[in-house]
Amino acid sequence: MGESMSPARLWDKGYKVDEAVEEFTVGNDYRLDLNLLKYDCMASIAHAKMLAKIGILTGPECGKIVKELQRIKKLSEERKFPILKGQEDCHTAIENELTRTLGELGKKIHAGRSRNDQVLTALRLYYMDNIRECISLSKSYVQALNFFSSKYGRIRIPGYTHTRKAMPSSVKLWAGAFIDSMLDNIKLLECALALVDQSPLGTGAGYGSPIKYDMEYAATELGFSAVQKNPIYAQLSRGKFESTILHALTQIMFDINRLSTDLIIFSMPEFGYYELPDSFTTGSSMMPQKKNPDVLELLRAKYHVVVALETEVKAISSNLPTGYSRDLQLTKGSIMKGFMVTEQSLKVSALLFRNLKVSKKRCKKAMTKELYATERAHVLVEKGVPFRDAYKRVSRELEGK
Amino acid sequence: MGESMSPARLWDKGYKVDEAVEEFTVGNDYRLDLNLLKYDCMASIAHAKMLAKIGILTGPECGKIVKELQRIKKLSEERKFPILKGQEDCHTAIENELTRTLGELGKKIHAGRSRNDQVLTALRLYYMDNIRECISLSKSYVQALNFFSSKYGRIRIPGYTHTRKAMPSSVKLWAGAFIDSMLDNIKLLECALALVDQSPLGTGAGYGSPIKYDMEYAATELGFSAVQKNPIYAQLSRGKFESTILHALTQIMFDINRLSTDLIIFSMPEFGYYELPDSFTTGSSMMPQKKNPDVLELLRAKYHVVVALETEVKAISSNLPTGYSRDLQLTKGSIMKGFMVTEQSLKVSALLFRNLKVSKKRCKKAMTKELYATERAHVLVEKGVPFRDAYKRVSRELEGK
Amino acid sequence: MGESMSPARLWDKGYKVDEAVEEFTVGNDYRLDLNLLKYDCMASIAHAKMLAKIGILTGPECGKIVKELQRIKKLSEERKFPILKGQEDCHTAIENELTRTLGELGKKIHAGRSRNDQVLTALRLYYMDNIRECISLSKSYVQALNFFSSKYGRIRIPGYTHTRKAMPSSVKLWAGAFIDSMLDNIKLLECALALVDQSPLGTGAGYGSPIKYDMEYAATELGFSAVQKNPIYAQLSRGKFESTILHALTQIMFDINRLSTDLIIFSMPEFGYYELPDSFTTGSSMMPQKKNPDVLELLRAKYHVVVALETEVKAISSNLPTGYSRDLQLTKGSIMKGFMVTEQSLKVSALLFRNLKVSKKRCKKAMTKELYATERAHVLVEKGVPFRDAYKRVSRELEGK
Amino acid sequence: MGESMSPARLWDKGYKVDEAVEEFTVGNDYRLDLNLLKYDCMASIAHAKMLAKIGILTGPECGKIVKELQRIKKLSEERKFPILKGQEDCHTAIENELTRTLGELGKKIHAGRSRNDQVLTALRLYYMDNIRECISLSKSYVQALNFFSSKYGRIRIPGYTHTRKAMPSSVKLWAGAFIDSMLDNIKLLECALALVDQSPLGTGAGYGSPIKYDMEYAATELGFSAVQKNPIYAQLSRGKFESTILHALTQIMFDINRLSTDLIIFSMPEFGYYELPDSFTTGSSMMPQKKNPDVLELLRAKYHVVVALETEVKAISSNLPTGYSRDLQLTKGSIMKGFMVTEQSLKVSALLFRNLKVSKKRCKKAMTKELYATERAHVLVEKGVPFRDAYKRVSRELEGK
Repeated sequence: MGESMSPARLWDKGYKVDEAVEEFTVGNDYRLDLNLLKYDCMASIAHAKMLAKIGILTGPECGKIVKELQRIKKLSEERKFPILKGQEDCHTAIENELTRTLGELGKKIHAGRSRNDQVLTALRLYYMDNIRECISLSKSYVQALNFFSSKYGRIRIPGYTHTRKAMPSSVKLWAGAFIDSMLDNIKLLECALALVDQSPLGTGAGYGSPIKYDMEYAATELGFSAVQKNPIYAQLSRGKFESTILHALTQIMFDINRLSTDLIIFSMPEFGYYELPDSFTTGSSMMPQKKNPDVLELLRAKYHVVVALETEVKAISSNLPTGYSRDLQLTKGSIMKGFMVTEQSLKVSALLFRNLKVSKKRCKKAMTKELYATERAHVLVEKGVPFRDAYKRVSRELEGK
Repeated sequence: MGESMSPARLWDKGYKVDEAVEEFTVGNDYRLDLNLLKYDCMASIAHAKMLAKIGILTGPECGKIVKELQRIKKLSEERKFPILKGQEDCHTAIENELTRTLGELGKKIHAGRSRNDQVLTALRLYYMDNIRECISLSKSYVQALNFFSSKYGRIRIPGYTHTRKAMPSSVKLWAGAFIDSMLDNIKLLECALALVDQSPLGTGAGYGSPIKYDMEYAATELGFSAVQKNPIYAQLSRGKFESTILHALTQIMFDINRLSTDLIIFSMPEFGYYELPDSFTTGSSMMPQKKNPDVLELLRAKYHVVVALETEVKAISSNLPTGYSRDLQLTKGSIMKGFMVTEQSLKVSALLFRNLKVSKKRCKKAMTKELYATERAHVLVEKGVPFRDAYKRVSRELEGK
Repeated sequence: MGESMSPARLWDKGYKVDEAVEEFTVGNDYRLDLNLLKYDCMASIAHAKMLAKIGILTGPECGKIVKELQRIKKLSEERKFPILKGQEDCHTAIENELTRTLGELGKKIHAGRSRNDQVLTALRLYYMDNIRECISLSKSYVQALNFFSSKYGRIRIPGYTHTRKAMPSSVKLWAGAFIDSMLDNIKLLECALALVDQSPLGTGAGYGSPIKYDMEYAATELGFSAVQKNPIYAQLSRGKFESTILHALTQIMFDINRLSTDLIIFSMPEFGYYELPDSFTTGSSMMPQKKNPDVLELLRAKYHVVVALETEVKAISSNLPTGYSRDLQLTKGSIMKGFMVTEQSLKVSALLFRNLKVSKKRCKKAMTKELYATERAHVLVEKGVPFRDAYKRVSRELEGK
Repeated sequence: MGESMSPARLWDKGYKVDEAVEEFTVGNDYRLDLNLLKYDCMASIAHAKMLAKIGILTGPECGKIVKELQRIKKLSEERKFPILKGQEDCHTAIENELTRTLGELGKKIHAGRSRNDQVLTALRLYYMDNIRECISLSKSYVQALNFFSSKYGRIRIPGYTHTRKAMPSSVKLWAGAFIDSMLDNIKLLECALALVDQSPLGTGAGYGSPIKYDMEYAATELGFSAVQKNPIYAQLSRGKFESTILHALTQIMFDINRLSTDLIIFSMPEFGYYELPDSFTTGSSMMPQKKNPDVLELLRAKYHVVVALETEVKAISSNLPTGYSRDLQLTKGSIMKGFMVTEQSLKVSALLFRNLKVSKKRCKKAMTKELYATERAHVLVEKGVPFRDAYKRVSRELEGK
């Protein structure tokens, strides 16, 4: 009876868990898991249907469970289904609710699955949704770059190497580089998506389900393209899949890091090639004249945040024997933060290119003669001077010798 | 008038900041800064007193400001002083409140300082408090280890190298290693503390204060041992000091990582040397027999969290020109998380050693003869056999040749 | 004349470079570049043919250059073409040799290209070869796992979660997990290969070639599937492509890390499930009885080496404005080491599975009753007991209540 | 006899080690260990004297061994004592040589010690020497900065925040920041030195020596300030001490990273504040006009190399049970590379400041009026205008409103 009053955890055996330890163990999970409620409902629905298919639930039983799960899913999408700290995670919260409303029937849902494959399934559905969101945001970013390029692309601008004027470039060439790079990043996201798109439902605790689990059926119900048959591999994927996703995210953030670095430097009043939108700058509390490129600086810095998350996941998940260990649960917060930071950064970057201006005047002024030295050398080459000799001749000219 | 209704930011110039960008820019700061309210009040009190000392505030003006700041400080310690998202950080929240209650007088507090040295000062006070807390918790952990060792220290236990039985060891030797190591960690904490214990108040935005700031006076008021005179160095320290603190924290977490690894392995029923307290284990949702060492696994994993934070700070703060850049603000969340994780882990570890048991019986059974091979070889050495020959003889004996 | 005596660098302007600085700048490059000689010859041949095609070289000129480059390529494959420290890199060494043997003609080879696109091209050819080698070695590793599984696969072995006995597993299931995982790793390698398979030849210093470079022709000559048209993107790829390759390598190493961890633990005499081949163990200098799993420990540790290389590349290449910076050159050693470590580890791992033994006897003994608890609970489920109740009943049984 | 022909390893048990595996296992160690020969001789001399003191060696035996070790030490300092690949490491090479020249007597040297404490001891002596070298080089760097500052310090230069002109600064202030920072770095080095300065000799394989080892005597002989009594802690320090040293090195490299970033930007012809010495720039193979700051770019990048080494060591040495594991040996190359890179970078940086020039003319031109806005606001403050109002007034003036 006491059990029905305080939320029961799935593995409760009756002994009292010291409070400090529980605080430490549960950590932030009950909050993070708000993101997973929806996906756990979806996975539980597929699981229930599968149980009906193989005769462990009757049709009507399955119907009741599915209906209830759909109700919870809807609530959770409206952010109206809470997870209490004492419930620890979304899985317990949902199963408790099922038992509360369906009684004995609710207790049947967990047959044939483990929290291990349940977590994996919900996470993969969440990953797939978020990877698709990142692809979509990457495309919006590309559109914004195209918009920017169509407006300012023709302006010639100095091309730098080693942070030194090198050769003539153009805004179009610069924007085009980031477009091409993002299109390749999208391929990496798709590659990660293809990897993750394997259903682990039915692999149980990592050594298979004790019942005749129809993994293909559950996978099809959930829209997975493939089944991850080997249960040990299903568990081994934890950390691996996350790090591959995070790697793809770092590549998006890398582009944003590099373009921010360009913009921070070349929007300095001393250059003035780019003009940042007001909403992307902030003032100083002490120096009245300042317009600081804070947003670009944060965009630059957030690359390192995502890289650190990848490194963290790679470290946490290693030097462990196979089979689930609780260490792996800490990767949940890392990947969620990775998605959050990347999605936000893509949105802000797209907004940036919708509002960024290029100063035709300042760029023109900056197109000084040394930028054309290579061209001059090659005019000599076309006249038959060996390249090395042409190079030396132009070099001497520029030094005024 | 509109300004007094919506909270004004310190650098507000009137243009409208796009909402998505503001969300991105402010981020989590307004929540993190709850930890800093107290310290910013302390620093502002010292600053106000210094302004009075050099004649920019009158005595009564200073008195009013100080009284008001003490009120805010008290409120914040009771968690009753909120920071609104629109206020962005604790500094704006406090200055707004001063202006709200003191009117014109409140506007005078920021003279001679910048948000840059203000942030640095509050952070350092916060760091010093938390380093001291870590030292104190480290000592409690050592006490717990001593308690554990006094209870079980005499029990002989196999010593392993390469995860293979090597030579006889004892619980006392094992616990003693972690005691000695933590005592050395404390030295690292003290080293970090000595580094951080320099007052940056009066260095302004990074190029000195425009008024004749009495840095020594402010430093003394705040209890700093030294003044960090060079304002460019004050800013350059951002990231450096944090990474040195985080490094010290990783060393604490390293010990916890290693001892957890030992305990996870040697509390396996197959060994049974250690018996984990019930509150440190959890069950399985699928496998009724399991008692899993989740808490130890989390302790092991959290080392990597702190290492990742250190790496993150080291990456974020590099490849930047000197002088403050907004990138550096992201290090605030990292160091706060580092302290939080380490302090919590130390508490849980101390609790662990108060409750951990050693099985005399299982240890005794494990003290098998190969552990004594080195001793046997040295008995021969003492009889005059050259070590290499003794080694070969014992080796052959063990292989039954 | 002096120039022909000491090897001239491509960018030599006559001033004397301080020795310590040169030592620092050249570093290890001249040694690393031995790996690139072959690829630079291939790229230079394609470049020469393109120059002939667009009329900058005559047919006979091109013929001589190509013949000479083929001679150098052959020499380099026999490890007979040295790079002197003063030459700095393979590109200078090769061009110097061309000038030495062909005189004026040799000086013509560099027309229309920059060392920047030259380096990128040689590196990409090198990457593609090595990725293919990794794929091939991964397949050999899978074969070895299959061989191992066909020999021992039927043996039942305890499945662990949380380093605790969980459910029955088998050697086949265990080996199968690593087979499936490596097959997915190969997909990551293929994904990296597809990314890298873009020819940058003709992008010059990062802002295009000053001549009408036929990039498609050069790409086709070299067997690239695509042309990387945007020269700024070509440079931006430096660091990006390397980190994506290194990420794929870390995934291979991750598997090896995890399987090594399993084998180190479960080959302990206390378990004895696995028997390591003698050649994979070493002895102790002090303890005559020891057979240490050094090779497995090194395999485990080398994962972290490759992860650190990836992190290093990601840090080095960030916070830089676009356009080549010398920082990026340090990524060369990182990626080369990454390939070397991974290829060697794959070879050693394949060798391991050709020689690893499983002890049927020890495994059988370890299949104790608690492993079957989940099955027992599900027998009750099939009899109609709700899962949660079945779980509790079996749990009580095991605790002897 | 066969043994005397092929070099015998310390733990040789007669079975044949597969070549590929040996290649993998020995790796680079035999080359790295050239750095340790001297220190192992020193440690072995102290060990031999201790053996004599406790009666395991006679006086004359000890004398012969010491004399022989001094000969080997001298040879190794002249780089004339090779380590063969088959010998694996310096310890085997030295013991083999002792046995070769002293016969039976040579075989006695290893009594009471293990390769584990032997390696630790040699490494610590090596670390202490190199930390001292770093301190000395840091002081030379400070001297060079002082020299630079005495020459150019008075020149006023814009102070930047957010890569935007902020307030007036000076070369002296800038150089002074790096001086103060390096003086603090030296404290970190001293802190690391104090940590490392504990003798592990006599801790054997990690569980104490089987003989009555006089650890104090050996420590005093070697000049250690303290004895690390707990043998498990001695082993646990592996990775810990290395990472603390590497952390200190990253702080040195951090300063160099930041100053390089400043110099790369502000030596751009567009600013021209700094003039790099010719020997610190290189040309372009394609663009005749370029003088690229390659050396500064490499200095900037090498920070990330050392950070990666620290991260690597921290990852390698974690998630391991206590007691030596071979994984830890991979930290040897990391720390050696860390010292090498840092020492070289300090040398090059000192050289830089001996030759770097500041353009008085360009700096003067850059001291534009907005730099004085804060001062102007504070003039109003001194006249009694509240700071916030003064701020707004100056802000409006600058915007020309």
